[in-house]
Amino acid sequence: MIFEVIVSTVDEHDVVHIAPMGIRYIDDFVVIAPFKPSQTLHNLEVTGTAVVNITDDVRVYAGCITGRTNWPTRPATHAKGRVLEAAINHQELEVKRVVDDELRPKVYLSQVHRSSTKPFPGFNRAQAAVIESAILVSRLHMLPEDKINAELAYLQIAIDKTAGPRELEAWQWLTDAIDEFCSHPAKLN
Amino acid sequence: MIFEVIVSTVDEHDVVHIAPMGIRYIDDFVVIAPFKPSQTLHNLEVTGTAVVNITDDVRVYAGCITGRTNWPTRPATHAKGRVLEAAINHQELEVKRVVDDELRPKVYLSQVHRSSTKPFPGFNRAQAAVIESAILVSRLHMLPEDKINAELAYLQIAIDKTAGPRELEAWQWLTDAIDEFCSHPAKLN
Repeated sequence: MIFEVIVSTVDEHDVVHIAPMGIRYIDDFVVIAPFKPSQTLHNLEVTGTAVVNITDDVRVYAGCITGRTNWPTRPATHAKGRVLEAAINHQELEVKRVVDDELRPKVYLSQVHRSSTKPFPGFNRAQAAVIESAILVSRLHMLPEDKINAELAYLQIAIDKTAGPRELEAWQWLTDAIDEFCSHPAKLN
Repeated sequence: MIFEVIVSTVDEHDVVHIAPMGIRYIDDFVVIAPFKPSQTLHNLEVTGTAVVNITDDVRVYAGCITGRTNWPTRPATHAKGRVLEAAINHQELEVKRVVDDELRPKVYLSQVHRSSTKPFPGFNRAQAAVIESAILVSRLHMLPEDKINAELAYLQIAIDKTAGPRELEAWQWLTDAIDEFCSHPAKLN
């Protein structure tokens, strides 16, 4: 079972890196499988820590996919790292084990601290549509244009019916990126 | 902005009714718009209370849509009503105002108690696919069969990639209901 979350890590100079990632909860571990090479993998190797941020502000997902990575953070309290200000809850984690792989090593982390700021307000279909669309944008170079347009048209229904201002802003960023790609596919390819 | 939640209410005999509903948060109110007539509306009129349950067990959504309504509950503590055991957080609410309507009156409720049992673990694409499919099942009689099949095929991707056992069980209930409808459309129509 995979959960879409925001993983934040810091490098040797304390510079934060924020990345939407699919994680697994296996026994008492959080398992992250970052690509090799990637900034998240580098940071995990350097610090041995990460923060898993759960947020209902889907602009963070859409933003990171479209080059808007400068989201406010605060220092973590129990591990080296930074917590996304938009998180409704977060876990501070330490690396316990790495299962190497040519493409995507599996990094097993255990929780050293958990904190909750806000209860989850319920499923919002527009938020789910933004998540799907962000995944779509990350795979544009692998998809035919008619499939992209069909998916967008389907996801647009939930946006029109259930979105709030944050979801509409995220949706705009993603549809702009898709328009840009379809006009100049080579640039993002 | 609409959130898909599980609303529980009780009638004059303390019999609980559980219904997946789209609610709004407006200022400090939770706004529910139950159909006229409906058990939820009747119960709101009789007791003046409701519980909004947030759960990540999407079997409750799929179950209620496919006739599996017998989900465990416990008594609410600050208002007349019952709390879904599967809730990760819930609000106990009192009716403050009703804006009447021929089809769907708007019922404004205010919170008398809130409690959180478990932090939200993050977005799971399969859970979102179950929610979408549950909505699809509730609208089968309005949709052509090729559109139903196209939506299902699209949603199946997230199920295959990210579901856990609860999502797979919920998905099975929903696809069984769709198969049944497509074989005997008159029965559910």
